[in-house]
Amino acid sequence: MARAPQERAVRTRATILRAAAQIFDEYGFSGSSVSKIIKLAGTTQGAMYFHFKSKEDLAKAVIDEQASDLDLPEQPAGLHQLVRTTLYLADELRENVLLRAGVTLAVEQGQLGLRDFGPYEMWAGQFRAELEAARRAGELLDDVVVEEFAQVLVAAYTGSQIMSHLRTGRADLPGRIGRLWWFLLPGIAPAPVAAELRAYVREYGKQPA
Amino acid sequence: MARAPQERAVRTRATILRAAAQIFDEYGFSGSSVSKIIKLAGTTQGAMYFHFKSKEDLAKAVIDEQASDLDLPEQPAGLHQLVRTTLYLADELRENVLLRAGVTLAVEQGQLGLRDFGPYEMWAGQFRAELEAARRAGELLDDVVVEEFAQVLVAAYTGSQIMSHLRTGRADLPGRIGRLWWFLLPGIAPAPVAAELRAYVREYGKQPA
Repeated sequence: MARAPQERAVRTRATILRAAAQIFDEYGFSGSSVSKIIKLAGTTQGAMYFHFKSKEDLAKAVIDEQASDLDLPEQPAGLHQLVRTTLYLADELRENVLLRAGVTLAVEQGQLGLRDFGPYEMWAGQFRAELEAARRAGELLDDVVVEEFAQVLVAAYTGSQIMSHLRTGRADLPGRIGRLWWFLLPGIAPAPVAAELRAYVREYGKQPA
Repeated sequence: MARAPQERAVRTRATILRAAAQIFDEYGFSGSSVSKIIKLAGTTQGAMYFHFKSKEDLAKAVIDEQASDLDLPEQPAGLHQLVRTTLYLADELRENVLLRAGVTLAVEQGQLGLRDFGPYEMWAGQFRAELEAARRAGELLDDVVVEEFAQVLVAAYTGSQIMSHLRTGRADLPGRIGRLWWFLLPGIAPAPVAAELRAYVREYGKQPA
């Protein structure tokens, strides 16, 4: 039986988006072209322009939908889950092309003429929910302002990702995220919680610097 | 008396470099052109190409020489000076055009076809020297690996700068750097040192988030 037209359109859009991510990831924004993307997606120019107006529009969609292929926790559960999620993201940044390209385009968006805080706010919101669960579970020190730490964590993560990308093509990112947590934990968690999580992240942090 | 030709060449190069920084800062790399830079510098095409081969070469010089107009401490002196320096840099990032443009180009260098870890390593080295002085002064906990924390600090600074640039054109950067230190200090400094410096950075961190 033929698929409903709407379902086919959804699949076509998804195929084009992932082809765009792959081309942006490989060639950078300025080295990418709509024709390369159409060719990789195996679609027509008409189908492409039905879904996306331009190369800029495709880049914006890749930035906005960078998390679409991730398997993120459905419910916030506190500090342990937050630490695990950041390490999971470090692994995904090595292989998940939509996340790789979305993150790189967000960092370099000035060159696209964009000034979009949205992707950073999206991650801050994700982290904030875990931190609020951490507070309810007694895993945060009283003087930690959740919104402030969420912003610091997104910033530190973003910079770690950039340095790791430049230095090792992101191979050392899990180690960098492990070491980041190692330094941050005593400032946010009661001593027993910090000690337990430090023992956990130390294994990641031992990976070559 | 006429200036020596060599001295004049040095001044011309410095003028072109700062004009390039101003144009890159205003228009971004792809929106900038050598002709705009020559016009702003008030120099000739010949003088320009004597010093710089291309727009890419100019961008690389702005990245490499981003710290040239800063008034950095001559001798490392430990954790207090490191904290003060990072807050000084946050102020300079709002006004110092060579630093502004150099930092932005370093972040977006993928679009220029560059993969240069050098600027990050330069700042890591600057911070490392202060951390080694901090260690000699008893301002660091025994289990802090200086190189690891230097890398974490550069990463966290880089990401804070990017978010602040997007969100407020860097107006909130001193506040972000103050809050960053507030969370990092307990993981690196003995309790009395951390408490003293936390009181100092809290004033910066109180600036609007």
